[in-house]
Amino acid sequence: MNPETLTLLQQHFGSKLSTAGAVLEAHGRDESRIDFHLPDAVLFAESEEDVLDALRFAGERQFPIVPFAVGSSLEGQVIPVQGGLSLDLSGLNRVIAIEAGGFQATVQAGVTYPELNRQARQHGLFWAVDPGAEASLGGMASTNASGTGAVKYGTTRDNILEMRVALLDGRVIRVGSRARKTSAGYDLKNLFIGAEGTLGIILELTVRLWPLPAEVVVLRGNFQSVAGAAACAVSIMGAALQPERLELIDEREIHAVNVHLGRHYPERPTLWIELASPSRAALAESLALCRELCEDAGAQDLAVASSPAERADIWEARHKAYSAMVALHPTHVNLSTDVCVPLHRLPEVVAATRAACDGRGLDASFVGHVGDGNFHVLFHAAPDDKATWDAIHATYDEMMSLTLAAGGTCSGEHGIGLHKKKYLAQERADTLELMREIKAVFDPTGLLNPQKIF
Amino acid sequence: MNPETLTLLQQHFGSKLSTAGAVLEAHGRDESRIDFHLPDAVLFAESEEDVLDALRFAGERQFPIVPFAVGSSLEGQVIPVQGGLSLDLSGLNRVIAIEAGGFQATVQAGVTYPELNRQARQHGLFWAVDPGAEASLGGMASTNASGTGAVKYGTTRDNILEMRVALLDGRVIRVGSRARKTSAGYDLKNLFIGAEGTLGIILELTVRLWPLPAEVVVLRGNFQSVAGAAACAVSIMGAALQPERLELIDEREIHAVNVHLGRHYPERPTLWIELASPSRAALAESLALCRELCEDAGAQDLAVASSPAERADIWEARHKAYSAMVALHPTHVNLSTDVCVPLHRLPEVVAATRAACDGRGLDASFVGHVGDGNFHVLFHAAPDDKATWDAIHATYDEMMSLTLAAGGTCSGEHGIGLHKKKYLAQERADTLELMREIKAVFDPTGLLNPQKIF
Ligand SMILES: Cc1cc2nc3c(=O)[nH]c(=O)nc-3n(C[C@H](O)[C@H](O)[C@H](O)COP(=O)(O)OP(=O)(O)OC[C@H]3O[C@@H](n4cnc5c(N)ncnc54)[C@H](O)[C@@H]3O)c2cc1C
Ligand SMILES: Cc1cc2nc3c(=O)[nH]c(=O)nc-3n(C[C@H](O)[C@H](O)[C@H](O)COP(=O)(O)OP(=O)(O)OC[C@H]3O[C@@H](n4cnc5c(N)ncnc54)[C@H](O)[C@@H]3O)c2cc1C
Repeated sequence: MNPETLTLLQQHFGSKLSTAGAVLEAHGRDESRIDFHLPDAVLFAESEEDVLDALRFAGERQFPIVPFAVGSSLEGQVIPVQGGLSLDLSGLNRVIAIEAGGFQATVQAGVTYPELNRQARQHGLFWAVDPGAEASLGGMASTNASGTGAVKYGTTRDNILEMRVALLDGRVIRVGSRARKTSAGYDLKNLFIGAEGTLGIILELTVRLWPLPAEVVVLRGNFQSVAGAAACAVSIMGAALQPERLELIDEREIHAVNVHLGRHYPERPTLWIELASPSRAALAESLALCRELCEDAGAQDLAVASSPAERADIWEARHKAYSAMVALHPTHVNLSTDVCVPLHRLPEVVAATRAACDGRGLDASFVGHVGDGNFHVLFHAAPDDKATWDAIHATYDEMMSLTLAAGGTCSGEHGIGLHKKKYLAQERADTLELMREIKAVFDPTGLLNPQKIF
Repeated sequence: MNPETLTLLQQHFGSKLSTAGAVLEAHGRDESRIDFHLPDAVLFAESEEDVLDALRFAGERQFPIVPFAVGSSLEGQVIPVQGGLSLDLSGLNRVIAIEAGGFQATVQAGVTYPELNRQARQHGLFWAVDPGAEASLGGMASTNASGTGAVKYGTTRDNILEMRVALLDGRVIRVGSRARKTSAGYDLKNLFIGAEGTLGIILELTVRLWPLPAEVVVLRGNFQSVAGAAACAVSIMGAALQPERLELIDEREIHAVNVHLGRHYPERPTLWIELASPSRAALAESLALCRELCEDAGAQDLAVASSPAERADIWEARHKAYSAMVALHPTHVNLSTDVCVPLHRLPEVVAATRAACDGRGLDASFVGHVGDGNFHVLFHAAPDDKATWDAIHATYDEMMSLTLAAGGTCSGEHGIGLHKKKYLAQERADTLELMREIKAVFDPTGLLNPQKIF
């Protein structure tokens, strides 16, 4: 950004624009801490008008704009690799309406999902997608985030009805519909979902809420191996038990959670399975069937957590598993992967990935929203430990080949950003060019979050 | 199409190409029988190669191509308004694989959903989207069709994992993923779903199958008014009963069904509610709750159909309601509407639409997949009865204004085709231009199903 442009922005936005070192730093990296690039300035948008003004200036002066919400994404999505303006949307934080009778809420894009849940709870409703970080609805839409709830309630994509989006040319468009289904013209809504801020700025979202489940328990069991736990998850899904959550967490992650949160869970590959039903009788039936499936799959130490406090402890542990692992190795750099395969291929891909890690002697841990066929391997090493990083990258490449060969995808929920462009090019060799052409319809000169995705 | 081009196609495709009068006639109209335009020729494609050859010739010789599967669409989608080639895909009718462990099937685009269900049944699985006509998977994808199952299992959109699509420039691309979720790049799959053959030709689909429900019953009840029945549907959805099907059918349609199929259902506004559970005990609980909600809403003559034969009768009646009405007035032309509103707005929109019909003295009947907020009014009149047609069109316009004012959409499931372009332009004034620009990425000279949607 040239000095005149910066001066122009400062004059226009006043104290909402910052060039303070610490602010630029905080907007120059994401949670993954691998790459780093400073923006020229950060705009703390307080209104839609601020967003539209920023877009207008970007168009006129041809500088890049990188949307930034909570900054919890993991693939370098918010890093302004060409400088320019980091557009901080966390100030668009108003829950506009909760339409309880319609199971809908309308929020500004910067609202975080825990805040939406806090407000929805009094209506007996909740937003069902819960990534481990306290992400914003706009950020979640832009990466098509998931979480433990996706196995029952779908991904962010499935839970967004309508959005208002600001385009670079100043138009504000409405995509999707508040009706539960529509066959009215091209589906532009789904184009913006997962687009990582490269097509437009989401201003407002109308989303689906769900009734809080009535009777809930969590069953936990330990397995000989992560692949064994994955196989059990497949059989639970096959039995149409429709669990609320179905999570795999391996012995290393459990150890980290025990250390970090003072828990005493058995340090073995584990499944955490949440079941819910409208009535106690129905719940007892599902639980009995689920227990049986776990026993058949060789589960040990089966235990039921039925009090709200016990259940909350488990999901806190799940949500903090990533940060617990990171905290175990404070001087290391972490690399989280994220693949998703057709469910019936999950055990074999998990087993082969585990073998690939073990074969190279890597201290790699596994967690996964396995009911979706989605799992993560978390690697870590000292930043300068070249031998280990080479082994990690070779393993990552191998994991990706296994995934693609099984008909899977290089990202189940984190998106592409900077770090996965190579894998997307493998998975989508046949459509990358089309994606570029579609990008050009919305952003002909490449100003919106440049160099991301492809 | 000029004569040399036709000769070229005849030489290349031989007996697969037809210009027989009856064949052209059959491909010049759809089920709605309102508009009509003959293609210059019909190609009965027998392979992907035929499709690719047709696309290549169309590009070289610049003639329109209109995909045609079963031809059951209702908004003029298959009518070749500029002539050219009607590309009949019904010969692409192979179920390629059923992957029971993965709850997936891969089919060619011309496979009909009843045929897929016939083959899936032996695995205890089914395809859950069931429009009233025996539509093809490719056609259903192209209109984002629904049916009675959408309330529980989602629309066609929600049930397609991956597709192979042929583009005009000869590329065959893969969109979507066999994994249950993906955040890998722009969502091109959802762009082709609902695109009515204007962006590319779907060759093959990998879709989700669901386990056949174990214990099933249908509850039926009669109401004072269609709006009363709609209000009851809303309260059932609000109670999170997750019905398998939740259908409204009014006294006129019931009358038609009684006449046409020899049934004896009470000729009153009716709800047909299918409930399913893994166990009998759980089903009894849901049924009791559902009964209570119906009684609270003023339902009368509540009756339970639990035998497979009784249930099959009901769903046969539902699926044939449209043709039964059509058969009641053999010399009339029929016009089916299709709106979808946010669920909590359904009773008021139904009531106001009913009043608009009654106010104009129209013999209009109502059916609806009301668990989705989706309903249809079926109008009919003699083709030359101008006064009635004027009243019908005025009512239709009013119904659409009510729908849009309630945050709804001008098509819940039938799509836009020719007949709803006016309403789409109302609903999507802000994005029509973008849709055209996206169309141009795939089809710069407007050869694929021209003049449809916008
Ligand atoms: C500990 C931890 C656990 C996690 N667990 C999960 C998990 O279980 N599942 C999961 O899916 N992810 C998970 N994530 C990743 C992260 O939380 C998600 O990617 C989330 O969607 C990011 O939301 P955010 O608000 O932080 O967005 P940001 O990181 O600020 O932005 C993400 C992307 O969206 C763009 N963007 C943001 N707001 C807008 C807008 N309004 N309009 C247009 N573009 C916008 C940005 O430019 C960027 O490309 C985890 C991350 C951490 C650190
Ligand atoms: C009695 C009756 C009841 C109905 N009930 C319902 C209902 O409950 N719900 C509902 O949603 N619809 C319903 N419909 C409408 C109709 O069945 C649907 O629109 C269906 O999706 C059409 O499928 P088809 O195979 O007949 O496609 P066609 O009518 O042949 O084609 C539909 C559109 O898709 C395009 N197309 C077809 N195949 C392909 C392909 N392979 N690639 C690209 N484009 C293609 C065509 O060009 C056209 O634009 C009903 C229709 C009738 C007559």
